[in-house]
Amino acid sequence: MNRWWVAGFSWELKDKPLARTFLGRAMVLFRTPDGRVGALEDRCCHKELPLSCGAVEDAGLRCGYHGLLFDTGGRCIEIPGQDRIPAKAKVRSYPLVERDKILWVWIGDTPDAQPADQPPAYPVHSDPRYQYGGDSFHYDAPWQLIHDNLLDLSHLGYVHTKTIGGNPTVHMNAKLTVDGQGEVVRVVRLMPNSEPPPTYSAAWPFTGRIDRWQEVEFRVSHLLIWTGAMDVGTGRFDDPEREGFHMRGFHGVTPETEGSAHYFWTIATNPHPDKDNVTQLVVDQTAATFYEDKDVIEAQWRNQQRFPVREQIDIHVDIGPNRARRVIAGLLKA
Amino acid sequence: MNRWWVAGFSWELKDKPLARTFLGRAMVLFRTPDGRVGALEDRCCHKELPLSCGAVEDAGLRCGYHGLLFDTGGRCIEIPGQDRIPAKAKVRSYPLVERDKILWVWIGDTPDAQPADQPPAYPVHSDPRYQYGGDSFHYDAPWQLIHDNLLDLSHLGYVHTKTIGGNPTVHMNAKLTVDGQGEVVRVVRLMPNSEPPPTYSAAWPFTGRIDRWQEVEFRVSHLLIWTGAMDVGTGRFDDPEREGFHMRGFHGVTPETEGSAHYFWTIATNPHPDKDNVTQLVVDQTAATFYEDKDVIEAQWRNQQRFPVREQIDIHVDIGPNRARRVIAGLLKA
Amino acid sequence: MNRWWVAGFSWELKDKPLARTFLGRAMVLFRTPDGRVGALEDRCCHKELPLSCGAVEDAGLRCGYHGLLFDTGGRCIEIPGQDRIPAKAKVRSYPLVERDKILWVWIGDTPDAQPADQPPAYPVHSDPRYQYGGDSFHYDAPWQLIHDNLLDLSHLGYVHTKTIGGNPTVHMNAKLTVDGQGEVVRVVRLMPNSEPPPTYSAAWPFTGRIDRWQEVEFRVSHLLIWTGAMDVGTGRFDDPEREGFHMRGFHGVTPETEGSAHYFWTIATNPHPDKDNVTQLVVDQTAATFYEDKDVIEAQWRNQQRFPVREQIDIHVDIGPNRARRVIAGLLKA
Repeated sequence: MNRWWVAGFSWELKDKPLARTFLGRAMVLFRTPDGRVGALEDRCCHKELPLSCGAVEDAGLRCGYHGLLFDTGGRCIEIPGQDRIPAKAKVRSYPLVERDKILWVWIGDTPDAQPADQPPAYPVHSDPRYQYGGDSFHYDAPWQLIHDNLLDLSHLGYVHTKTIGGNPTVHMNAKLTVDGQGEVVRVVRLMPNSEPPPTYSAAWPFTGRIDRWQEVEFRVSHLLIWTGAMDVGTGRFDDPEREGFHMRGFHGVTPETEGSAHYFWTIATNPHPDKDNVTQLVVDQTAATFYEDKDVIEAQWRNQQRFPVREQIDIHVDIGPNRARRVIAGLLKA
Repeated sequence: MNRWWVAGFSWELKDKPLARTFLGRAMVLFRTPDGRVGALEDRCCHKELPLSCGAVEDAGLRCGYHGLLFDTGGRCIEIPGQDRIPAKAKVRSYPLVERDKILWVWIGDTPDAQPADQPPAYPVHSDPRYQYGGDSFHYDAPWQLIHDNLLDLSHLGYVHTKTIGGNPTVHMNAKLTVDGQGEVVRVVRLMPNSEPPPTYSAAWPFTGRIDRWQEVEFRVSHLLIWTGAMDVGTGRFDDPEREGFHMRGFHGVTPETEGSAHYFWTIATNPHPDKDNVTQLVVDQTAATFYEDKDVIEAQWRNQQRFPVREQIDIHVDIGPNRARRVIAGLLKA
Repeated sequence: MNRWWVAGFSWELKDKPLARTFLGRAMVLFRTPDGRVGALEDRCCHKELPLSCGAVEDAGLRCGYHGLLFDTGGRCIEIPGQDRIPAKAKVRSYPLVERDKILWVWIGDTPDAQPADQPPAYPVHSDPRYQYGGDSFHYDAPWQLIHDNLLDLSHLGYVHTKTIGGNPTVHMNAKLTVDGQGEVVRVVRLMPNSEPPPTYSAAWPFTGRIDRWQEVEFRVSHLLIWTGAMDVGTGRFDDPEREGFHMRGFHGVTPETEGSAHYFWTIATNPHPDKDNVTQLVVDQTAATFYEDKDVIEAQWRNQQRFPVREQIDIHVDIGPNRARRVIAGLLKA
């Protein structure tokens, strides 16, 4: 509440309206031909047809049943065949902003609340060193299970053996640092002198063993994950300008309902000049990896619903996820 | 309650029993080889298998599990391997009558109540000037949303642009008269000097603009809709014997459950001698049109369930539907 | 409770774990490469992923998310990357025994309860006179409806006309004897001098009419059904070593939930030397027959849920099923 949430990507808003639910609020997103974007309650105030069944016009969005026309602010600006437009003829609107190809929606705790700030920037999407791709996933699982997964990359050795996994023991024994402040949680895992996993070898001409890093930054509405590797001994983990193979992930995680979520991700990489089609390879293998996560997390959630009252035990890799859960619990309490 | 409801069409009762639920009552409909029809509770009184899983015989309907045989009145007349038939061996039956190719079932508020009258006649089905076709639709939406749709044809300009629609502004501005008495609501919309919509042009050799009419008569269990058009200036809207292109629709709307309904429709037309296959064209385009309505109404209902407590606003075209809703509300109160 | 239940067949446990729920307890069954079998609660004690998503190893079953390894007793014996294994790191295990190719699981009313006896033997599976096949069915219906069906074979004449049915009147009029003691119910139906049904004629060179028998033995967790036939007058029904065509059915019926069940069956026959492929024919036609039963029983259950409070009437063939229902009611009361 009172926060910017990821609502999708710019390339998803074409000439048709787009229906999505965020935090239990069913919305229709659209962009008019002249480029204005809007997010409205997805329900005509006349007979309650979803406005996402309607059509985008220059002036806004027209309902597909009796033709009422709404502007991006939710005001009804035309009732066909009727001169007077009643004051009640309006639907709730939500601030929607495009920034760095990401659509951000602001949801306040009252209909009149307005955002005091702009949504976050994400400069990677316009950084000339990087190329990227991504997708929008729907999860039949609550959002915090996605956080758990992204904040504890030790599962790579069991879930993602075919792509970014590698030796499970190396993963589980990686040096782990967890810190952060305020709403931010940072998890860093370093795997010096390790074997490159399949995706790394395919994307970059490593000469042998690698120094590999994973830096995860949790920011409530999204996570930034910087992973990569250098040939052993060719750089320092604390050098922000270090060379080698880089993958920078953007992960917007927005609750849909209590038991479902949206997961909006991009992966950006620095293609090696001697390798062809690296970006497509990295995006494809990342998508395959994230589908593996989705399978695991949705199975986990179905199982948590079958066994509703049992305890979990904690193990060493849960430090990051547990810290993020405390951040959310604190926000919910406040 | 205590009323005849449309249960289907004569051509639907062949050699197999037919399962349908009306007003929450699960029934099996069947016709014996000698032509008697029956409507029984769809549950054998022995082990509760649906009788619709059984087989029609000369004497009635035989259960598909242990062979109990029931007549059209619901009495068990044979228990295989057992001489005595207990008095409790019976299932509830409902009066079922075929009239003008329409199946009508009477549902009373007690099991012993019987109808005092015959079901309504529908002479169009045997009028030599007309040819017709139709279908039985199942709606995942409550019956009154279908009434709303049929009593307010202003939606044609937005929903049915490809068939019977035409210019939306003409539709929304059409002269509208609403009257009626008792349980009957009549809505008349006249569109003199308008453009013929696609279906009209395909079915009739109009020479140019048309005088178009829509007369809708709501009768609780069904609606009669008479639409059509004449070449401009060639007849009077108040002449019941006027010439031109006619479409006469029968629309049986029977609740299945609180959130679902049956919609039994036929469309009859007077084929022009110079045009081939007009009846099939009119039936096919009407079916396409009614599927468009079904899409809209089911989307509307799903959305009403997502937004359960919000108000609707009324606009000018809601006069007819609102009057019919008052009729139903009055009947439910009584 | 405190009883052995059929959990499946030996040939179902290969190199992958198998997820099944018995009496509301979600379990994972597995066999290690050296042949030990285990049944564990299907939920990792760490993050609750089903253990059935994991992998079988020499030492036990490894979770597919973070690699925790459990032995057949449910103890966690490895947490990757962590030396200490907390005492709470365990999952509930259930005694699982293979006997005569049948998997039996014992479910006690407390986690610590242990079986005092071995599961029942089923020597038919190793009898050289017989060959057999079978399958595991899942039923969307409660287990007692399957008992009813198996204890009252009078339905054969209506449900299984294409295979083991035959003349319905002969079936309904067959001499019926019901006895038993303790938890056992025995139903015997004799059809001397009757027509062989299709499966019988296909499997055995009968010369004309047959003396046919059906002996059903209900034992709470399973039923044993011995059916068969001799050429008329060539043997006695009370001779346990009588000649002719034999079918011996094993029918494990294990509740899954209150409204669903597992049905594990095999059918064994004594192939006639002059007939080819008799066993496959008998197994295939039995499977077809049991699918017919499944259709009927699931339709019956759906219908019982539509009509939740109605009475049933009893007929003459219900003596066996009703006696078995009294056995179960007595056990539930105790």
